[in-house]
Amino acid sequence: MTGAPLFERMALIGIGLIGSSIAQTARQRGLVKEIAISTRSPATLQRAEELELGDFYSVDAAQAVDGADLVILCVPVGANEAVAKWISPVLKAGAILTDVGSTKQSVVDQVSPHVPKGVHFIPGHPIAGTEQSGPDAGFPTLFDQRWCILTPPKGTDQAALEKLSAFWQECGSNVDLMDPKHHDLVLAIVSHLPHLIAYNIVGTADDLETVTKSQVIKYSASGFRDFTRLAASDPTMWRDVCLNNKEAILEMLSRFSEDLSAMQRAIRWGDGDMLFDLFTRTRGIRRSIIEAGQETDEPDFGRHAADTRQDD
Amino acid sequence: MTGAPLFERMALIGIGLIGSSIAQTARQRGLVKEIAISTRSPATLQRAEELELGDFYSVDAAQAVDGADLVILCVPVGANEAVAKWISPVLKAGAILTDVGSTKQSVVDQVSPHVPKGVHFIPGHPIAGTEQSGPDAGFPTLFDQRWCILTPPKGTDQAALEKLSAFWQECGSNVDLMDPKHHDLVLAIVSHLPHLIAYNIVGTADDLETVTKSQVIKYSASGFRDFTRLAASDPTMWRDVCLNNKEAILEMLSRFSEDLSAMQRAIRWGDGDMLFDLFTRTRGIRRSIIEAGQETDEPDFGRHAADTRQDD
Ligand SMILES: NC(=O)c1ccc[n+]([C@@H]2O[C@H](COP(=O)([O-])OP(=O)(O)OC[C@H]3O[C@@H](n4cnc5c(N)ncnc54)[C@H](OP(=O)(O)O)[C@@H]3O)[C@@H](O)[C@H]2O)c1
Ligand SMILES: NC(=O)c1ccc[n+]([C@@H]2O[C@H](COP(=O)([O-])OP(=O)(O)OC[C@H]3O[C@@H](n4cnc5c(N)ncnc54)[C@H](OP(=O)(O)O)[C@@H]3O)[C@@H](O)[C@H]2O)c1
Repeated sequence: MTGAPLFERMALIGIGLIGSSIAQTARQRGLVKEIAISTRSPATLQRAEELELGDFYSVDAAQAVDGADLVILCVPVGANEAVAKWISPVLKAGAILTDVGSTKQSVVDQVSPHVPKGVHFIPGHPIAGTEQSGPDAGFPTLFDQRWCILTPPKGTDQAALEKLSAFWQECGSNVDLMDPKHHDLVLAIVSHLPHLIAYNIVGTADDLETVTKSQVIKYSASGFRDFTRLAASDPTMWRDVCLNNKEAILEMLSRFSEDLSAMQRAIRWGDGDMLFDLFTRTRGIRRSIIEAGQETDEPDFGRHAADTRQDD
Repeated sequence: MTGAPLFERMALIGIGLIGSSIAQTARQRGLVKEIAISTRSPATLQRAEELELGDFYSVDAAQAVDGADLVILCVPVGANEAVAKWISPVLKAGAILTDVGSTKQSVVDQVSPHVPKGVHFIPGHPIAGTEQSGPDAGFPTLFDQRWCILTPPKGTDQAALEKLSAFWQECGSNVDLMDPKHHDLVLAIVSHLPHLIAYNIVGTADDLETVTKSQVIKYSASGFRDFTRLAASDPTMWRDVCLNNKEAILEMLSRFSEDLSAMQRAIRWGDGDMLFDLFTRTRGIRRSIIEAGQETDEPDFGRHAADTRQDD
């Protein structure tokens, strides 16, 4: 980015993995003139300051938002409503208010009532993340080559939408527009179900009496460890996702369970052909994901290569 | 390895990911004097020869085994019985016969009847692999810092067991001894269930009418892609695993399903505390796996770091 900054003052409410990554990207690429940071706990705020993520720090969200022309809520989705109420009185006319929450209809329902006239509320969700959380987990390339979904309400100001889209594009992402309900359905299958399945299988393994925990750990390279990454994600964030995208998640869970029953039946009755067919048709999707630039093509996520490098 | 080779002639029946990795490791570390390779198809055999994986090549398994003092079956577990019958007449007294199959009781049942007196049959399973298959997928460090489980039958010759253990240790692995039934139970949870769950969720996503395949691919970085790695594994191998470890797999599947129903119920009734508890207790297992040297501690399996390196 060589031109003028897109925004004068960006306020980030919440400064964990996502907030910290936005701060670092925006700073590195000159997207904003000033960065104001607010978070709930003094300890996290202090850490953000130590990391020099912003120019202004306060545990008072309203103080951070004061005068901002871009406000991004980076808190767990269950916390959005309270934050919106808090900052509502100081949101200035013409400002863009957005968020990064993993569910969108709930954010629309909970935040919209508190948005003053003249403020452009455009919910968003960058499809990028890791299993880690907190300000230290952030890094400036998190959004590179990823997608950011915006769910502008009907009648959204076109110029504001373009400006927010430009911001995410400068962060390295492609922008997609979507209806919030459809977003929630798509994310239920690509993100929420995978996380819940991962949490569930790790829980199942943890509960066994016949196989010890130390055996699970020792032999985890045979498949299990892949699930532990997602299952190490932040519990608050995921509790909030479950509570705020109930319908779509239950729909996907019930389809998954149906399919699992069919597989179980095939195993019980020794139906090798059905199993072979399923195991074959699932291969193509990975190829497509790699071709779309959303995954590494190194075997084993490149982990073996990494091991070898460490040995050198 | 600086001493004399452990074996004079090692015969590998099957030369895919595992066979090829054994050949490369054994050659590189001087564990055997001569490597004889046999596989079903002339095309795979030719590829093995191009890769210079051995010293002797034949589509006739008996020819490869002739004179060998170490024979390793590296074929899908459903093919072990036919191969055992084939090579039985030429197995020489004092030779060690082993395998690398992902199930163990079935291998015992199917191979034992064809083992001549004087031949030491010690089933095995290296807990190491990737989602790729065929001779090109092999690499010499696959077994480094991994575990290899041996399931010696009662009355196994101690010297033979020690020699085979030394072979795997020189390949870089720690050796564990286990009862074949217990092996099958442990692997059902750490490997078979994860693979089946991964195949299943990818299948579920593939079948949706409301979310398009291109959406699943675009947004897969939010969790889904992690499952596609396991779901890209070899269909023949996994069909055979299902057919040969039915009981243990069905047991684990039904526990998983029960737990999933409980989670589903918690989501339906908005039981945030139950969800938070589950999402919290699963975090520790990943930490233990990383501490045990079975997983990288880089966030996102180190994929983001890899992306960044590519950009440099
Ligand atoms: N992680 C991902 O992969 C990912 C990807 C895309 C979108 N998202 C979404 O991004 C948002 C933030 O996620 P994150 O990964 O950055 O989380 P995080 O690293 O855990 O950081 C959360 C931030 O929100 C604050 N916070 C937590 N609970 C709060 C509450 N009840 N009231 C006010 N502030 C609260 C925390 O403050 P204190 O530390 O001061 O308590 C912290 O600053 C979530 O809505 C999530 O759904 C996450
Ligand atoms: N992949 C893993 O992660 C992993 C890990 C540990 C253990 N294992 C076990 O290791 C064994 C081999 O797996 P892999 O990954 O090396 O498989 P792979 O790469 O697919 O290679 C399989 C080899 O077996 C041969 N083969 C296949 N079907 C056969 C049949 N019906 N009769 C005779 N030969 C046949 C193939 O021959 P052609 O190419 O000539 O047809 C090929 O040489 C399996 O028992 C598996 O359970 C695998």
